[in-house]
Amino acid sequence: MTDLALLVRSVTEQMAQIEDRGAVATYIPPLAEIDPLRFGLCIVTADGAVHTAGDCDEPFSIQSVSKVFALTQALGKIGEALWLRVGREPSGTAFNSIVQLEREQGIPRNPFVNAGALVVADVNLAGHEPRVAIGELLRFVRHMADDETIAIDEAVARAEQETGFRNVALANYMKAFGNLKHPPERTLGVYFHQCAIAMSCRQLAMAGRYLMHGGRIEPGGPRLISPQRARRINALMLTCGHYDASGDFAFRVGLPGKSGVGGAILAIAPGKAAIAVWSPGLNENGNSQLGTLALERIAEATGWSVFGAD
Amino acid sequence: MTDLALLVRSVTEQMAQIEDRGAVATYIPPLAEIDPLRFGLCIVTADGAVHTAGDCDEPFSIQSVSKVFALTQALGKIGEALWLRVGREPSGTAFNSIVQLEREQGIPRNPFVNAGALVVADVNLAGHEPRVAIGELLRFVRHMADDETIAIDEAVARAEQETGFRNVALANYMKAFGNLKHPPERTLGVYFHQCAIAMSCRQLAMAGRYLMHGGRIEPGGPRLISPQRARRINALMLTCGHYDASGDFAFRVGLPGKSGVGGAILAIAPGKAAIAVWSPGLNENGNSQLGTLALERIAEATGWSVFGAD
Amino acid sequence: MTDLALLVRSVTEQMAQIEDRGAVATYIPPLAEIDPLRFGLCIVTADGAVHTAGDCDEPFSIQSVSKVFALTQALGKIGEALWLRVGREPSGTAFNSIVQLEREQGIPRNPFVNAGALVVADVNLAGHEPRVAIGELLRFVRHMADDETIAIDEAVARAEQETGFRNVALANYMKAFGNLKHPPERTLGVYFHQCAIAMSCRQLAMAGRYLMHGGRIEPGGPRLISPQRARRINALMLTCGHYDASGDFAFRVGLPGKSGVGGAILAIAPGKAAIAVWSPGLNENGNSQLGTLALERIAEATGWSVFGAD
Amino acid sequence: MTDLALLVRSVTEQMAQIEDRGAVATYIPPLAEIDPLRFGLCIVTADGAVHTAGDCDEPFSIQSVSKVFALTQALGKIGEALWLRVGREPSGTAFNSIVQLEREQGIPRNPFVNAGALVVADVNLAGHEPRVAIGELLRFVRHMADDETIAIDEAVARAEQETGFRNVALANYMKAFGNLKHPPERTLGVYFHQCAIAMSCRQLAMAGRYLMHGGRIEPGGPRLISPQRARRINALMLTCGHYDASGDFAFRVGLPGKSGVGGAILAIAPGKAAIAVWSPGLNENGNSQLGTLALERIAEATGWSVFGAD
Repeated sequence: MTDLALLVRSVTEQMAQIEDRGAVATYIPPLAEIDPLRFGLCIVTADGAVHTAGDCDEPFSIQSVSKVFALTQALGKIGEALWLRVGREPSGTAFNSIVQLEREQGIPRNPFVNAGALVVADVNLAGHEPRVAIGELLRFVRHMADDETIAIDEAVARAEQETGFRNVALANYMKAFGNLKHPPERTLGVYFHQCAIAMSCRQLAMAGRYLMHGGRIEPGGPRLISPQRARRINALMLTCGHYDASGDFAFRVGLPGKSGVGGAILAIAPGKAAIAVWSPGLNENGNSQLGTLALERIAEATGWSVFGAD
Repeated sequence: MTDLALLVRSVTEQMAQIEDRGAVATYIPPLAEIDPLRFGLCIVTADGAVHTAGDCDEPFSIQSVSKVFALTQALGKIGEALWLRVGREPSGTAFNSIVQLEREQGIPRNPFVNAGALVVADVNLAGHEPRVAIGELLRFVRHMADDETIAIDEAVARAEQETGFRNVALANYMKAFGNLKHPPERTLGVYFHQCAIAMSCRQLAMAGRYLMHGGRIEPGGPRLISPQRARRINALMLTCGHYDASGDFAFRVGLPGKSGVGGAILAIAPGKAAIAVWSPGLNENGNSQLGTLALERIAEATGWSVFGAD
Repeated sequence: MTDLALLVRSVTEQMAQIEDRGAVATYIPPLAEIDPLRFGLCIVTADGAVHTAGDCDEPFSIQSVSKVFALTQALGKIGEALWLRVGREPSGTAFNSIVQLEREQGIPRNPFVNAGALVVADVNLAGHEPRVAIGELLRFVRHMADDETIAIDEAVARAEQETGFRNVALANYMKAFGNLKHPPERTLGVYFHQCAIAMSCRQLAMAGRYLMHGGRIEPGGPRLISPQRARRINALMLTCGHYDASGDFAFRVGLPGKSGVGGAILAIAPGKAAIAVWSPGLNENGNSQLGTLALERIAEATGWSVFGAD
Repeated sequence: MTDLALLVRSVTEQMAQIEDRGAVATYIPPLAEIDPLRFGLCIVTADGAVHTAGDCDEPFSIQSVSKVFALTQALGKIGEALWLRVGREPSGTAFNSIVQLEREQGIPRNPFVNAGALVVADVNLAGHEPRVAIGELLRFVRHMADDETIAIDEAVARAEQETGFRNVALANYMKAFGNLKHPPERTLGVYFHQCAIAMSCRQLAMAGRYLMHGGRIEPGGPRLISPQRARRINALMLTCGHYDASGDFAFRVGLPGKSGVGGAILAIAPGKAAIAVWSPGLNENGNSQLGTLALERIAEATGWSVFGAD
C-alpha cells in the first residue's frame, strides 16, 4: 500500500472520530435529510492513480462546486468578455449577499458568489432552452469525469426552485441593471439544475483533473482549455472559492478549492492531484467542516500547498 | 548570459517603452516628487543567483510592503494569538476603508489593510517606546537583506505623520473598540515609521528570501520562522496583498505579492524566487501599474505561477 | 377672489416661467411620454373650499402617493401589528435600496420605501385575489375623494409589471426572510396596480382631507380612522415621505408630504389644508422638482408650516 | 392650579412608578454615577408661564442637546453656507456611525449626528482658541435662558476628552476629506466642552423659548434669528433629533425634539411651549426612556402634536 493510500485511509479514520461535524444544510428537505456521518474522499494523482476511502462512491448534490464547471463552460463560449459582466475579486461578504450588487451596479464580485454564478448561467443559456444549456453542462462534466452515469437529482432541482427566493431576488436585481440577458426565470432554471448535479467523490475528483493538468484531462491528452485558463480558474478558486472564508482556506489548506453547501469540496494541487472530499456538516461560513479539516491534514502531510514545502 | 538574466533585461526594456505608467502617489511631497520613469527589478533565485536591471539599487519608500515584515515580527512575538485581533480574509473594500471596522466591531479584515497593519504595529510596540519597536523591525529587515545600510527616510515619516488623518481615524476607531493596547499616537508612530523604510529592489528581494525558502534565508541556513508560518504569510499575500485588487493580481500573476503605494511590489515564487519590482506609477487600485505588468510577464515566461505550469 | 385663490393662481404662473423643470421618469413608456410642461395644483381648506389652477383635472399616475392610502388600509386591517413587519424610521438610502434589507433581516425601514410598501400590499392582500385587494383600495380612495370615476390605468400597471425587476427582487428578498405571506408575484400584482391608480390634483387633494381633519373626511363627519392614527400617518409622511430627501422637504416646506415618481405630491397642513400638486419633472432625488418648489412658496405665503409661523 | 400644572405633576408621578427606566450611560464615570431615579420636567408656555416638577433645578450634562444651540450659533456665523459642509437628512444609522462618512466623502448627514456636530464646532471655532468659541456659546445659552449661572462641568469635559476615541476618529476622518478647517484636536476641544454644559430642566426649557417663538425669546422681544431659521431648526430636530429613532419619536410624540446621552430631551411645540425633561436611563437607541414616554403623554394630553389635534 502506498503512502498516499495509507494517508487517505488514515485521514478518513481520523474524521470518523470527530463529533463536532458542523450542521447539515436545512433549507431544502433533500439536503436536510442527509446523514451527517457520511464521509467520502478521493484523490487522483498526476500519474492517474486513484485513492479512495469512505463513502467515495455515494452521489451527493455538488451544489456550488458546479460553478467551477459552469465557469469553464462560459469561458469557452465568450472568453475574457465574461469579465465585463462579473468581477474577479473576493467579495468580503456572504455567498448570497445582495449589498455588493447595489454598490457596484449589478456587477457581481466574482463567478463563485451566487450572483456571479447566475451571470455565468445566463452566458451558458445563450438564447437556448434551459434544458439545452444544462444538458450541455452535464455532457461536459460526464466527459471530464469519464462517467456517463452522472445525472441531475430532479428532487433537489425542484426543491431549490421552490425555496430559492433569495436567488430569484439576485437574478431580478441584476436584470434591473441589465446584467442578465434572458428572462430571470430561465436563467434561474439553468442555475437551479446545475446545483442539483449529483456526483460521488470519485466522479468529482476525476472531473477536476483538467485543472491539475493545465487544461488536459490526462498528460499528453487533448487540451480542453489552455494552461493559462486552467491557472486562472485555479486562482479564482483560491481567492474566491470558499466565499467569505476563502482567506482562511488558503491560510489553512493552501490549495485552490471550491466548496458546495451539500458538503463537497473540490481541491486542486496543480501538477500533483485533484481531490474531492464530502462531509455534509457545514461550518459557520457554509463550508464543509470536516472536508476542510481533512484537506488541511492532507496538504500538511503531502506538502502540496501551493505556498511552499517544508 | 542566462535565460533569466536576459528575461530581467528584456522585461525592463519592454517597460521603458510603455507610456501609460499610472499616476504617482501625491498625498505627501516626498512621494509626489518621484520621477515616474524610474523602474527597478531584482530577482533572487533559489540557488542564490541575483539578477537585476534598471534602477535596482535606488532606494524608495517601501510603504505597505513593510506590512509583510511587521507581520512576521508580530507573529514571532505573540504567534497565532494575533488572529484574535485581526482577520485573515480579503476585505472587499479599499485599503483605508473604515466601513468594515464598524460592521465587524473594530476587528480588521486582515493584516495588510491599514487597520490590520495598525494592530500589528500595536503588537510590535509591546509596551516599549515607538523607536524601540521600529529599531527592532529595522534590524530584522537588515538581517534578512544582509545589508546594514537600510534606513528610515525621516522626511517621509514626518510627512506621513503630518497628513495621515485617515490612519489616525482608523487607529482611534479601533481604540474605541479596545483593539489597540497603546495610546493611538504611539502605535501610529511605529506605523508611520515602518512605512518610511527605504529600500532598493535588490535589498527588498534579498529580504524576501525567507518566504521563498520556507522560513530560512538560505537553504540549509537557520530557520527564522517555521515552514508553516512562511506558507501562511504567502497565503495572506496572495489573498490580501493587493487590497481590493488581490483577486486580479492572483488571476494575472499567480504569485503571492505585496504592493506599496511607493510603487514597489515584493512577489514570492515559493521554492523558486523572490522578486522585487519598483515603478512609482500606480493603477486605479493603488498598486504599481508597470510593476504588476512586469510580474505578469515574468510569471508567464518562467512558469512560476503557483497555479500550474503549461 | 380670496387671497388663497390668488396664491394658487400666482404660484402656478410662477412655475410656468421656470425652465429647469427636472427630468420626467423614463423607466416605463406611459410615464416617459408625459409632457413636462403639465402642472396642476389644488388646495382644499378646512372649511371645504377648493382652489385649483393649471391642469388640476388632468389624471396622472399617482405612483407612490398610493402608499399613504394603502398604509391607511393596512392599519385598518391589522392595526399596530403592522410595525412588527415594517419600521418607522427614515431609510438614509434610496427608495428602492435593497442594502438596508440585508442589514436588517428583511424588515423594511418604513412603509414608504418600496420594500415597506410591498409588505403593506402583502397585508392588504390578506389571502384574497390581488384584484380583490386592489378593488378594495380603489373603493376606499373613491370614497375619500368622493369621486367614483377614479380608476386604474391598466397600461401603466402592465408596464410596471414588465419592467419592475427591482421590485421583484425586493419582494423575493423579503420572502426569503419570511416577511411576505403570499407568493411574491401576487403581492407584486397588488403593488403594481396600486401604483397605477390615476387621479387628478383635485381628486388627490380631496382624498387627502382625512389627514387634515384628524381622521374625518369633513369636520363633524364620521371617523375613518382615529385622530392618533391620522397624526401618526402625517408623522411618517414628514419623516419618510420623500425618500432620502425627506429631511430637505421638511426643512424647505415644513409639511407632511408624500411624493410619487409620476410627479405628484400630496401635502397636509393639519387642521388647515390638503394640497395636491403635479409636475412630472423630477429632481435628483426622484421627487417633483416644481411640485416641491410650489409647496415651498405656498407654505411660506400661508404660514402653514408645522414648525411655526412668523 | 392650572390644568398644565396638574399635568406636569401627574406625569412626573406616573414616571416615578415605572421600574424599567432604561440604562444610564456608562462610557464616562460622571455619567455612570448619576442616580437613575432622578427625573425633572419643566414646561414654559407661550405666555411665559413656567411649570416644573421633580428634579427640575438639578443640573445635568446636556450633551447632544447642545447641538441645537451650537447649530444656531454656526448658522449665525456663516448662514446657509453651512449646508455645503453638512447635510440635512436623517442618517439611517447610529449617532456615532462612520460608515456614512465613507460613502458620502466626509460630508455628515446632518448637524445632529456626532460628525455633523463636529463640523458645526469647527465653524464656531472660526480660527480662535477653543476657549473663545466655547465661551461664546456659553454666553449665548446663558442669554437665552436668562441665567448667568449656567456653566461647564469640567470633570465631564475632561472625561469626554480622555475616552472619546470614536469622536477623535470621526474628526480625523473628516479632516482627511478636508471637511474640518482646524486641527482636529482643537475642534474636538470645542465639541467636548459644549457637550459638558450643565443645565437644569428649567434652564433648558427657558433656553429653548426662541424656537417656540419664531426666533424671539419672548413675543414682541428682539429677534435672535429669523422665523424661517427657527422653523428650519425645528424641522431638523424633528427629522434628525433622535438619531436613528427620530422617526419613532415623531410617530409617538409628534414634536421637534433633541435628546442627549445624559438623559435630557428638549422638545418644542411651536407657538405653544418649550419643554425640557430629564431622566438618565436610556433606551436602546440612546434616548431617554422615561423622557420620551413623558413627552408622549404630555403631547397626547395637550394636543400639541404638530401633526394635528383630535
